Amino acid sequence: MNANQLHKQIRQKESFLCIGLDVDLEKIPEFLLQEEDPIFAFNKAIIDATHHLCVAYKPNTAFYEAYGLKGWQALQKTIDYLNTNYPEQFTIADAKRGDIGNTSTRYAKAFYQAMEFDAITIAPYMGKDSVEPFLAFPDKFAILLALTSNQGAFDFQTLDAQGLELYKQVIKTSTSWEHAERLMYVVGATKAEYLGEIRKLIPNQFLLVPGVGAQGGSLQEVCKYGMNAQVGLLVNSSRGIIYASNQSDFAQAAAAKAKALQEQMQAVLNENA
Amino acid sequence: MNANQLHKQIRQKESFLCIGLDVDLEKIPEFLLQEEDPIFAFNKAIIDATHHLCVAYKPNTAFYEAYGLKGWQALQKTIDYLNTNYPEQFTIADAKRGDIGNTSTRYAKAFYQAMEFDAITIAPYMGKDSVEPFLAFPDKFAILLALTSNQGAFDFQTLDAQGLELYKQVIKTSTSWEHAERLMYVVGATKAEYLGEIRKLIPNQFLLVPGVGAQGGSLQEVCKYGMNAQVGLLVNSSRGIIYASNQSDFAQAAAAKAKALQEQMQAVLNENA
Repeated sequence: MNANQLHKQIRQKESFLCIGLDVDLEKIPEFLLQEEDPIFAFNKAIIDATHHLCVAYKPNTAFYEAYGLKGWQALQKTIDYLNTNYPEQFTIADAKRGDIGNTSTRYAKAFYQAMEFDAITIAPYMGKDSVEPFLAFPDKFAILLALTSNQGAFDFQTLDAQGLELYKQVIKTSTSWEHAERLMYVVGATKAEYLGEIRKLIPNQFLLVPGVGAQGGSLQEVCKYGMNAQVGLLVNSSRGIIYASNQSDFAQAAAAKAKALQEQMQAVLNENA
Repeated sequence: MNANQLHKQIRQKESFLCIGLDVDLEKIPEFLLQEEDPIFAFNKAIIDATHHLCVAYKPNTAFYEAYGLKGWQALQKTIDYLNTNYPEQFTIADAKRGDIGNTSTRYAKAFYQAMEFDAITIAPYMGKDSVEPFLAFPDKFAILLALTSNQGAFDFQTLDAQGLELYKQVIKTSTSWEHAERLMYVVGATKAEYLGEIRKLIPNQFLLVPGVGAQGGSLQEVCKYGMNAQVGLLVNSSRGIIYASNQSDFAQAAAAKAKALQEQMQAVLNENA
């Protein structure tokens, strides 16, 4: 998928919602545990109930790895289900990978080709040659951690690094890398006031914004500082949507939570139309 | 495993060699491709031929993920084989993970409990609450990326961050985290001259040093600047050992390369005894 197709989908659905599929067997409805593949059964139900309200799905790979082979099988089935039934969805492997060049290429092939995700999140610490292998694939995106939503973001990301805060150095430096147009950036919703500064460095690129909902970020603040003429935002909610209920109505309850966020997004898009 | 046990093993074997199991189906002997699980067959042969020469094995998870479910299966079989047959070996999942707290806990359980690795490599960018979940497990180690062996290390890691180079800030800050005694650090062999400075910050902790061999680092330089009274080094070689031959003698050829490194290490240990 390219950025124009993503933007078009946002306009059509009046939504820039990304739903995080962070599946925890201790939190899903108990009756699903009798299914052959409870994780996939849960994802399938959530996706079927919410796909018209969102433009992207983001499984965090840790939740799947934690269940070993069964988890990876469930992840593969989930991405296959999305690509077969809802090919318009932008799919993000939230994997936070990054390694020396030949190893990063391995990860890129795993997520872009073997599993056919549209995008993968990447940690920037190892620099250019750890990220560029992820930028070598047309119509695929590497989503670089810039300013994350957690408290630990202030340990290193906001240190003054030769005149610019580290996260700004990361953003600024990355714009010079080959195929930088295939970069997006993670900026936590809990750091919305930083978005204005970030937009000065990357006016056109998409930002993936986690932290609305359970982590306390405000959608209005994120839009105020982060939105650009092409919208340029994917706002993620995970737990706040998928665990809205752990009863038989879990998919409908998730859809209701997604609908509430979509309506807020619709209002913002109409205000800025 | 605890650090004393690791140190004891180093003294017994007169080796601080770590062998990187970065298995690439295009590089292993062709006849192995007929095996039911060529990756595991390769690893098993390498391990059986080299275990007396090294103290640690380090599969880089990217190489396994690239092969999807079969890759994860091979990784699980490899760690099970090590834990069953060579429980004295220190096992490192080179995964470079790191995420917000509840997600890092998932990764820790996946690698420490489901797969029973002794250690996992961690990216520091997201700070304290992304790393501490990995430090909550007794006799397990989180190996933090400090100064990596690749060229991109100079993009961010060596920036002056409020008076200290970023990698030093990472090291210094991390020593205040809860259970910091369960931290080790990655420092590339290609940056051996930095090891003296690093030893001032962390005199006692183990360093995992990749980059000897294929990447061009020097064992002598690493030992000169990085060794402490408890040795405190795990020097990794991957491609230089495991791909010494792609013929039927591949395991013996790997053992010969490992033996050559072990003998260099033995000489250094005797010099410093």
